Amino acid sequence: MTMQPGRVVAVVGPGDDASAEVCALARQVGLLLAARGAVVITGGLGGVMSAAAHGARDGGGLVIGLLPGADRSAGNEHLTVTIPTGLGQARNAVIVRAADGLVAVGGSWGTLSEVALARRTGTPVVWLRGWQVRDAGDRVVAVPVAESPEDAVARLAAALHW
Amino acid sequence: MTMQPGRVVAVVGPGDDASAEVCALARQVGLLLAARGAVVITGGLGGVMSAAAHGARDGGGLVIGLLPGADRSAGNEHLTVTIPTGLGQARNAVIVRAADGLVAVGGSWGTLSEVALARRTGTPVVWLRGWQVRDAGDRVVAVPVAESPEDAVARLAAALHW
Amino acid sequence: MTMQPGRVVAVVGPGDDASAEVCALARQVGLLLAARGAVVITGGLGGVMSAAAHGARDGGGLVIGLLPGADRSAGNEHLTVTIPTGLGQARNAVIVRAADGLVAVGGSWGTLSEVALARRTGTPVVWLRGWQVRDAGDRVVAVPVAESPEDAVARLAAALHW
Amino acid sequence: MTMQPGRVVAVVGPGDDASAEVCALARQVGLLLAARGAVVITGGLGGVMSAAAHGARDGGGLVIGLLPGADRSAGNEHLTVTIPTGLGQARNAVIVRAADGLVAVGGSWGTLSEVALARRTGTPVVWLRGWQVRDAGDRVVAVPVAESPEDAVARLAAALHW
Repeated sequence: MTMQPGRVVAVVGPGDDASAEVCALARQVGLLLAARGAVVITGGLGGVMSAAAHGARDGGGLVIGLLPGADRSAGNEHLTVTIPTGLGQARNAVIVRAADGLVAVGGSWGTLSEVALARRTGTPVVWLRGWQVRDAGDRVVAVPVAESPEDAVARLAAALHW
Repeated sequence: MTMQPGRVVAVVGPGDDASAEVCALARQVGLLLAARGAVVITGGLGGVMSAAAHGARDGGGLVIGLLPGADRSAGNEHLTVTIPTGLGQARNAVIVRAADGLVAVGGSWGTLSEVALARRTGTPVVWLRGWQVRDAGDRVVAVPVAESPEDAVARLAAALHW
Repeated sequence: MTMQPGRVVAVVGPGDDASAEVCALARQVGLLLAARGAVVITGGLGGVMSAAAHGARDGGGLVIGLLPGADRSAGNEHLTVTIPTGLGQARNAVIVRAADGLVAVGGSWGTLSEVALARRTGTPVVWLRGWQVRDAGDRVVAVPVAESPEDAVARLAAALHW
Repeated sequence: MTMQPGRVVAVVGPGDDASAEVCALARQVGLLLAARGAVVITGGLGGVMSAAAHGARDGGGLVIGLLPGADRSAGNEHLTVTIPTGLGQARNAVIVRAADGLVAVGGSWGTLSEVALARRTGTPVVWLRGWQVRDAGDRVVAVPVAESPEDAVARLAAALHW
């Protein structure tokens, strides 16, 4: 695989209440993305956001954290650049807009809002240990599911022709 | 029931691809909310957004449309005030933040993003003809379900002590 | 002059540190705009924002307050609808985008940011008791100046072909 | 002077209509900031935004571009990371919020909106070849003025205790 500069991938997922297992997966996702040359964007806080940043830094990558609040010190220690947006939850839409694609790891309402916006705007997304969505007729509304960090990155790369 | 000025309720749902049945339900929700004295907020476009505005105007109410784009003329004909935000999908977060509570009618990815943000921020929400969300363990992640427009408004009013 | 429904005019100016004179002018601007049939938008807080809303309500008009924060109770008592945006100072750009035109009354840095955005986006604006801007060559960079509330509304109406 | 990682400085100024002189100054400002270890944030487009990014890259620095639109390809060629926000002019408020301090180079209405927001929020700012603001009593409302790129960076560093 060749590296292509400028791919920007968001890793999204639950914050401080993320499980240790989910955080370990997110760290591996961050590592794999950085190793592939992606810039990683996250929401900048704890849990999956911190673990993905940690992994991306382990992989020698660049990580941008887009915080909801106005206080830079809320950013986790692994970020290369912390951007306090002051936009509240509207920053979720900026994360989705800023990314070429998303890997979601674990489930939470905030994570679901980001996955839903990605689907709404046609931004490729894969979900690892994710939630499932069914429509009013009880049919599964497809969000591509990944089985492992390696699978998540491979699926996203394929969707991005990366 | 007494009316209490200043309740602001968002009605969210699919746009131009909403079914006729879902639009009819949304119109009834708008009517009932207006009759109860609520100000209605919507995303300002077609489908559920237009139908809810139509109903609210039928009920003598005030309807604000928060458009994603910068062009006022994209607003539907039933709005009392059209607010082109220019924020893109970040306006979904403003709709949720601006409302005391939400009634979602029908399902779409944009609608799901708003329901998820409401759950994330603790804003009461009920969903009529909605989607279902299950967590990674296949357990239903509860969004209060309404059976009819009357039920939706009654459940939301109860949640808001309204 | 004929009334034309749907004109949306923002009245912007300093908050709690506005002088009594500036607030009196803002109240008169709100009254004149409402009497002409405009919907008034403000930033929802005190000072000029409150006075303009007061005047618009005196004139039988509709006033929307777009608050920077997430707390509805920060809105002043004269608003018809309070919209807590949760966007911080980014709400200034939404006010400018939402309006067909602006009347600025008095000066402050926040007010100047709104006047500058209006000029940037080509939204008509007039300034009463305003600040003056000179370019690097010490030439006045024109913001239309109004001499009185009546003059402000007349100048804005002319710019809007209203 | 010692380098302190994590300082984030925005360089703001006119876009494609910036003069060659102003662009040359902006490039030097970018170079000096990068040499001092700052991460540079810009609005991501042409003119001063491109020149400052060019200089920062010359200096070995990291440059983030926060675009108003949703199209990544609008970003200039010198950016390390391009973030299409989709927020329109509301992204100006995010630039100001994201930065520890600002250097403005040259004048335009968009630039003035950013300088005004910086003053509004108390973010240190210096202005090189800038506009001048006078209040209603014709008194200069102070924005710190810099005489050269070196002076701009030195003044900002002093304000930031950097």
